[in-house]
Amino acid sequence: MRSLLIHVSKDSLSTALQAALKAISANSSSRVLSGIHIQAQAEGLTLTASNIRMTIEYKLPVKMDSMIVHKPGEIVVPACYFYEIIRKLDPGLIRLEIAETLILNIQSGYTQFRLCGMDTAEFPRIHYVDHPNTKKIRMKNTLLKQIFKHVVFAVSSLETRPVLTGVSLQIDNQNIRVVATDGIRLAQQVVENVEDYGVSPLNVIIPGSTLEDLLKIINDDEGSSTQIEIGQKQIRFISDGLRVQSALLEGTYPYVDNLIPQVYISEVIVKTERLLRVVERIAILAGESVTLGVYHSGILHLISRTADVGEAKEEIPLEYLEGEYFRVAFNGKYFRDILRAIDSDTLRIRFAGKERPLVIQPVDMTSSTLFLITPMRTQDGG
Amino acid sequence: MRSLLIHVSKDSLSTALQAALKAISANSSSRVLSGIHIQAQAEGLTLTASNIRMTIEYKLPVKMDSMIVHKPGEIVVPACYFYEIIRKLDPGLIRLEIAETLILNIQSGYTQFRLCGMDTAEFPRIHYVDHPNTKKIRMKNTLLKQIFKHVVFAVSSLETRPVLTGVSLQIDNQNIRVVATDGIRLAQQVVENVEDYGVSPLNVIIPGSTLEDLLKIINDDEGSSTQIEIGQKQIRFISDGLRVQSALLEGTYPYVDNLIPQVYISEVIVKTERLLRVVERIAILAGESVTLGVYHSGILHLISRTADVGEAKEEIPLEYLEGEYFRVAFNGKYFRDILRAIDSDTLRIRFAGKERPLVIQPVDMTSSTLFLITPMRTQDGG
Repeated sequence: MRSLLIHVSKDSLSTALQAALKAISANSSSRVLSGIHIQAQAEGLTLTASNIRMTIEYKLPVKMDSMIVHKPGEIVVPACYFYEIIRKLDPGLIRLEIAETLILNIQSGYTQFRLCGMDTAEFPRIHYVDHPNTKKIRMKNTLLKQIFKHVVFAVSSLETRPVLTGVSLQIDNQNIRVVATDGIRLAQQVVENVEDYGVSPLNVIIPGSTLEDLLKIINDDEGSSTQIEIGQKQIRFISDGLRVQSALLEGTYPYVDNLIPQVYISEVIVKTERLLRVVERIAILAGESVTLGVYHSGILHLISRTADVGEAKEEIPLEYLEGEYFRVAFNGKYFRDILRAIDSDTLRIRFAGKERPLVIQPVDMTSSTLFLITPMRTQDGG
Repeated sequence: MRSLLIHVSKDSLSTALQAALKAISANSSSRVLSGIHIQAQAEGLTLTASNIRMTIEYKLPVKMDSMIVHKPGEIVVPACYFYEIIRKLDPGLIRLEIAETLILNIQSGYTQFRLCGMDTAEFPRIHYVDHPNTKKIRMKNTLLKQIFKHVVFAVSSLETRPVLTGVSLQIDNQNIRVVATDGIRLAQQVVENVEDYGVSPLNVIIPGSTLEDLLKIINDDEGSSTQIEIGQKQIRFISDGLRVQSALLEGTYPYVDNLIPQVYISEVIVKTERLLRVVERIAILAGESVTLGVYHSGILHLISRTADVGEAKEEIPLEYLEGEYFRVAFNGKYFRDILRAIDSDTLRIRFAGKERPLVIQPVDMTSSTLFLITPMRTQDGG
């Protein structure tokens, strides 16, 4: 037992808690991992939450009006109760104190909570042992988000091939390449000539769930940057008070270059938002698949069908068409996810034959994002 | 098969559908009851949805720009698919047509849906056979909402005593009284000297679920009113284009007058919003109960506890105190629900002894709302 005593503002504590809570699994089997580690030291307050794969640490430095440490100390308390209590308190300063063994007192105005804690000894920590082979990169938060946000949705949700639940990150000289695929769809982002990171080439697989959480909690400020530390088995993201440490996925990521068709039979350009709206609409009846067809010059046809319920069809004028007419069927939800990941006003669809994936790319000078979707064999489209 | 053909605006159709859909049970065992009945007649479009207990009918009258009937006809289509489709269409006029047997064509701009329908023969209808004993009352919507909205939350969710899943409605001369209780809590609203409805005294039990749906779909306009038709086994609410018909609950509602304490040991007055905020907060740890106590003049204490997790306590200054100090424990969620149903700035709590329910009333000249909550026997409060 250590006798913690601090004052912290509700706003600061809520922000820190929201970030750290991303590491709490809803159905954690370990009691200590359903807890949040609270540690007050001379420099400030550190909150840590952890699951088997990832640990998130958030530091609130001492600050005159919002974070005052009177006595250092530490405890682990149930994360969900602690967060609910803090969220429902009135705004203002909160007093946290350990006055009895394994009990955290929370006080704000006339409100007093006593929350039963757990022993801190079992709680996992982030160990900052610098392995000599650890590679360190500093990247702007805006670039970090841009790189991962377009691809992370495409990871596999099945554990049958664990490497596919992650995003492949390759850095070589000044070029970054990220790839995610579940075997049916693929998303790739290449950023060239970023800056010289001064590290030897690296090639790792980061769990998709880690990246999804990271994208939610790192800030978007133009001036903020993140230090990325890549070891043999672990990756760490360090930005302002936040430290996210995650296991890397072991194994070899599949070679995907030969999946991307280099020769096309047809190419069309269409407005992104309009196509997305249509796909969201006809996906209501896309029980089996969505069929996309170009039969008449200048028009894209979309058809979907659910047996015994009905069918939907819609036409969209094309901005551009080159090559042969074609027809291909695929999973409507996957197609919709790809369209949602595209920022540019128009997109390009390239058809390389019924046996090859369809290539979808934003039409945008600066982007080198590429999506693949593998056709389904159906009566209509296959 | 009948050949329906209409044009209707997306907005009108969405509004009608949202109202009618309240009658669709999420897990209806009957295929036809998961459908919505669409009927076009010379006067307009009628949408009907039904479950075992309740039928909702919504009429859209013919209107130049938003509702045009070209050919009358009818069909039943799956409600959830139909609603999803209409919701996702672009704004503007929608064309509905039956061109093939049991297929509804839905068209809007370049969008076309074909939705498989069902036979209308099996679909339940509202039959407007006027029984001579049917009692008819016209009531302003504002009054109708005011009467039921404060009490409906207190019905029982258990089917063990079916009458308690309903709200008791008594009308006698110019007085209306509604009561809901689940045996632990009770809510009662009395409105006197409303107007002379010119009907013989009535005493029926309306299912709580019917009233919850009705409160959501009838409008709040100052000028709107609802015709209430009360038969032997059925009740109908008719307002603008909306008709809601529900079975009444059979049986005798318990006599509750002797539950309401007439003599009090103590009475306190406290600010409603502050008390609600405190109860919402300490309810986080109210696993077993909330204890409310007045020990020192001028202060209300609230304490809650969850074994092995922790406890919460808070004090609130009283606006008024008369009588002895007291302490009583009860279900925190029930107490919160009562506080949420109180509109007035302050409320009165009356204590009549540990074996009697606590009486909670808004402090408000015009209101005659009353809530009871039965104490729990606990170490702390019982």
